[in-house]
Amino acid sequence: MSPAGRRPGGPDTRSKILESARAEFAERGYVAATIRQVARRSGVDPALVYHYFGDKAGLFVACLALPADPRDVQLEAREGGGLDGARIAERFLAQWEQGAAGPGRSFVTLTQAVSSAPEVARAVREFLTERVWSRVPAGSGEAAARTTALVSSTLLGAAWARYVMRMEPFASATRAEVAAWIGPTIEAYITGRLGTARGPGPGS
Amino acid sequence: MSPAGRRPGGPDTRSKILESARAEFAERGYVAATIRQVARRSGVDPALVYHYFGDKAGLFVACLALPADPRDVQLEAREGGGLDGARIAERFLAQWEQGAAGPGRSFVTLTQAVSSAPEVARAVREFLTERVWSRVPAGSGEAAARTTALVSSTLLGAAWARYVMRMEPFASATRAEVAAWIGPTIEAYITGRLGTARGPGPGS
Repeated sequence: MSPAGRRPGGPDTRSKILESARAEFAERGYVAATIRQVARRSGVDPALVYHYFGDKAGLFVACLALPADPRDVQLEAREGGGLDGARIAERFLAQWEQGAAGPGRSFVTLTQAVSSAPEVARAVREFLTERVWSRVPAGSGEAAARTTALVSSTLLGAAWARYVMRMEPFASATRAEVAAWIGPTIEAYITGRLGTARGPGPGS
Repeated sequence: MSPAGRRPGGPDTRSKILESARAEFAERGYVAATIRQVARRSGVDPALVYHYFGDKAGLFVACLALPADPRDVQLEAREGGGLDGARIAERFLAQWEQGAAGPGRSFVTLTQAVSSAPEVARAVREFLTERVWSRVPAGSGEAAARTTALVSSTLLGAAWARYVMRMEPFASATRAEVAAWIGPTIEAYITGRLGTARGPGPGS
């Protein structure tokens, strides 16, 4: 198939570019993915991709909204009234194990992007804070922010061990096993049984 | 200063290259660092760097042994006979806040390297397992491996939230505060109060 050259811009073109970008990021990872190749896959001029998304980081951030909706994570937390840490963990992990590129590949790509581009880190942070955690009942103010960060770091740490570091037994265990290991920790953070100790403060 | 061209190889040359590589990785991160620039800083031909270290991933792995010895983390765990999760966490975080490139920069570089090159992930995994955790009293066999992975994922998750994601309150808190939040979790994993729940198993 030969490159189709410039096409008129518009919502369809933008969607098409995003679709190509998701495929490119999934297959090649964040570091190796190129705007040029995304443009080729979409049959548009690279200048059009830059026009819409600014740069590779901007393109990646725009793709973030498209995979399985992370809000599912917090909705899961409410079902049945109670709070099930293992189910939160299992749903979180399940999101990263769907892609055609192989289980966990999308998480590896995310970590590449976040550690390479501060603007991606900011976008993911805002995404987690505003869209994923805003409706989890974790209190309010400073305590809620701490709880959110502790639960996020528990989930991200487990995904890192499983997909990026491939550390055993995290790498070979079933999702349900990993979820059972960290689920009670998540519950302990949310109920305040853990994560509320006060450090010696800024003066120390 | 003009490039010095080829120099005779030898232990000094190798050390000089590693020193230059550490500086290059610290200043530019893993993705942007280049063999060519490391060679220029060392005053050697790039071919000599390839000869000694194979490629950028190999060079990074060789650098891993050189910063502050991570074994300090586990030695800290033994001092005073007891186990102090907050002190383990604080020592872990302190290691990443020393570099001249700014607090946490070396952790960001590590995450770039680990997520970009599977061989780096393997090297870091072996390093953690064989050198850092082998002497921590965490039982033996499968339970010990799980404890090690849970504690590692807790420490890595916190570092990720603090240095890479810059998620509040992790980013602005003192090291001692972060250590106080996750210390009891680490103790709970090591003593088996957390992290020992059995999942529904492979059949589910």
